[in-house]
Amino acid sequence: MFNQEVLNELIKALGKDNVLTEKEDLLTYSFDATAAMPRETPNVVVTPNNTEEVATVVKIANRYKVPIYPRGSGTNLSGGTIPLEQGIVLSLLHMDKILEIDDENLTAWVEPGVIIQDLNDAVAKYGLIYPPDPGTVTTATMGGSVSECSGGLRGLKYGVTKHYVMGMELVLANGDVIKWGGKTVKNVTGYDLTALYTGAEGTLGIITKILVKLIPAPEARKSFLAVFDDINKAGTCISAIIKNKVIPATLEIMDNVTIRTVENFTKAGLPTEAEAVVLIEVDGYKESVAREAEIVERICKECGAVEVRAAESDEERDNIWFARRNALPALAQMKPTTVLEDATVPRSKIPEMLHAIRQIAEKYNLTIGTFGHAGDGNLHPTIVTDFRDKEEMERVDKAVDEIFKVAVSLGGTLSGEHGVGISKAKYLPLEFGEAGVETLRRIKEALDPNYLLNPGKIVLRGE
Amino acid sequence: MFNQEVLNELIKALGKDNVLTEKEDLLTYSFDATAAMPRETPNVVVTPNNTEEVATVVKIANRYKVPIYPRGSGTNLSGGTIPLEQGIVLSLLHMDKILEIDDENLTAWVEPGVIIQDLNDAVAKYGLIYPPDPGTVTTATMGGSVSECSGGLRGLKYGVTKHYVMGMELVLANGDVIKWGGKTVKNVTGYDLTALYTGAEGTLGIITKILVKLIPAPEARKSFLAVFDDINKAGTCISAIIKNKVIPATLEIMDNVTIRTVENFTKAGLPTEAEAVVLIEVDGYKESVAREAEIVERICKECGAVEVRAAESDEERDNIWFARRNALPALAQMKPTTVLEDATVPRSKIPEMLHAIRQIAEKYNLTIGTFGHAGDGNLHPTIVTDFRDKEEMERVDKAVDEIFKVAVSLGGTLSGEHGVGISKAKYLPLEFGEAGVETLRRIKEALDPNYLLNPGKIVLRGE
Repeated sequence: MFNQEVLNELIKALGKDNVLTEKEDLLTYSFDATAAMPRETPNVVVTPNNTEEVATVVKIANRYKVPIYPRGSGTNLSGGTIPLEQGIVLSLLHMDKILEIDDENLTAWVEPGVIIQDLNDAVAKYGLIYPPDPGTVTTATMGGSVSECSGGLRGLKYGVTKHYVMGMELVLANGDVIKWGGKTVKNVTGYDLTALYTGAEGTLGIITKILVKLIPAPEARKSFLAVFDDINKAGTCISAIIKNKVIPATLEIMDNVTIRTVENFTKAGLPTEAEAVVLIEVDGYKESVAREAEIVERICKECGAVEVRAAESDEERDNIWFARRNALPALAQMKPTTVLEDATVPRSKIPEMLHAIRQIAEKYNLTIGTFGHAGDGNLHPTIVTDFRDKEEMERVDKAVDEIFKVAVSLGGTLSGEHGVGISKAKYLPLEFGEAGVETLRRIKEALDPNYLLNPGKIVLRGE
Repeated sequence: MFNQEVLNELIKALGKDNVLTEKEDLLTYSFDATAAMPRETPNVVVTPNNTEEVATVVKIANRYKVPIYPRGSGTNLSGGTIPLEQGIVLSLLHMDKILEIDDENLTAWVEPGVIIQDLNDAVAKYGLIYPPDPGTVTTATMGGSVSECSGGLRGLKYGVTKHYVMGMELVLANGDVIKWGGKTVKNVTGYDLTALYTGAEGTLGIITKILVKLIPAPEARKSFLAVFDDINKAGTCISAIIKNKVIPATLEIMDNVTIRTVENFTKAGLPTEAEAVVLIEVDGYKESVAREAEIVERICKECGAVEVRAAESDEERDNIWFARRNALPALAQMKPTTVLEDATVPRSKIPEMLHAIRQIAEKYNLTIGTFGHAGDGNLHPTIVTDFRDKEEMERVDKAVDEIFKVAVSLGGTLSGEHGVGISKAKYLPLEFGEAGVETLRRIKEALDPNYLLNPGKIVLRGE
């Protein structure tokens, strides 16, 4: 339980400046970027400056059995950072150093508070990139994105965060510090804790240093926008590109609701009558890009695209991706509340999923815009609504239920990149069955027996 | 404890033909491909035909607290399949079906008994490959290689087994069956059990189905052999290639001991006076291959290669890789016992590691040939010895100890691709500290509380 003694110990360990207790400070930590979530104000927010201080906080929390919520920029979309049971929010924003860029081994060591874009800016000097690029790349932290296993637009060709985390330093639930992994792509020593902790949403330990893999920046790229008057044709096109052995860096889709909303918002020149647009970018050596660009253009036409726009300049390219990057902001300005899901299906099931979402929207009389990462099957059905309208929110809940059920029945998953957090914890049995959920619980209890680390997320206490 | 009752139950469940008890049958399961390991004969070998039968065997084993050892072809190199505490060897060789090849989603579902090469042959018809290629690719099973997280020659560019496992069906220690993962590259629902069980060496559950990712086969490739009179120059060359943004599919090294031995064995025309040869293959689109080949050749010369041989035909290419594939067999025929390690260091530390191995060989008066996957830092120091020579074997043990210590001190790992098994279990504290080993133990005990699954491997019982 939190009490004055805990507070005194925290202040003694971290100094007064790193322990926030003012109500107005605490309030900003009572929510994150997720819509329609419960709010809760923590008892205290601490901002440790190094691993030892994190370990000290965890040990204090342990002694008094106070919950502890690791937090970066709070941009997550599943309620993953909300301090549901009060206690200590542990902000890692002070630990924001890039510790090493190793251009011989193509790796970087960073602290968890580093902003993803800042890492990319720093490695650009070496001609390298860190590929994971969630929509929040300019604000989200490395610690947060590793804990959530962020995805983004380049998942199809480059993979997601888990494919770039090679090692980490961790503070365990008892305050012990361990290091795992290393700079070698091959490492089979012990269980793969690096993988287990990536995407564990801070429920098994606190990540205090991260080792990531970097790759050479592609030399060239080319973007296309293909316009379809039929969702099925767009789906066929997506599969056909990959069947023809072209793996685009980015392969996105926007449905008609999204297109119209984005066009209204951005005036980017999108075809508002289209049933779907598919946005494609190929990258690599300039010779490969030329070859793949030709294949992509041909396949789009063969699959019945009404129009294929190729970006002939950087400006035209930026215009295409500006439209896509504005899909969420455009939908979000329609109504006060944006319920953004990320149910994900095998790529070949995208047309079926899009049809199902449309039927669900009609059934519950809701506006659902769908856009997303078609190449990797990661769609973002986005319900625009108003949290003050209780009756509509009930319909929203039912629609979300159905969307999850369809995704799982199509061989997909509840969450492609937003995480389970609070919002999807109750749906886990749908995907894993009770035996699967029990397996998660066993792991949670082995590594955090008192449920002190980010409680209420992913694994709920058993009966 | 194993007894007649257990045997009766197994026979009742699987039929007499799937339960082996003859001494000559059991003997062949008392060892695997690892040198200098303890031998132990199991009480019984069972060969289930499907998941339900595996689950039944596990439930029987549970009821009577009998250890159970999942096994494929037994080609592993860390004693991972030896039935140390007797009990039931569960051979998965009868479960050898390729269940699905999905060329739209670029995935395949296989049973664990499928031979790796058979999967590759089957997907070749679709122009696809399954990249992990351990030396045992023609004999090892998918179940074994996933459980060991096998590496191979293509790790640098294509990654290792864990980068291709997308999902699995598992029989847990209590006999429950769960499914994890799926066909989507993005999946953040729950902890990543697919990753946890890949490389867990059968100590946390039994894998009964595997979903793997496939990729388009590269269109072209080009191989080189670069000859160096100095280990440091070879090391510089390896780093320089990657610093110049070329990521070869394969980037191998052989030291002088290995070169001489291989040449003696194969007459492949290797330069026996060379201190090291570096073998390189680039692949991809033919235009990219042409470009990368030019860069590779230039860098090898700039780094002081005495000679650079480019394979101008398939025959010349095969000749280069024939020599490399024969490194282990050639060393193995020198003496009765081959102690093959796989300590792995960051790529930039390879010259230091090679020097250290040479010093260790001199110090303990041993013949150590070193070859391996230089691009990913995964070296194979290979001690040729005779297990009957006790005095020499003591020196071998000391040399192995020192090799591990140097690897870890250089920021490397005990095992890049062979696994921990029996042979490296005692070294884990060196890499992880006691807190790290205790973390492994907590996971083991959460998922296999009675240590029935492959006991004596990776995690040893606590005091």
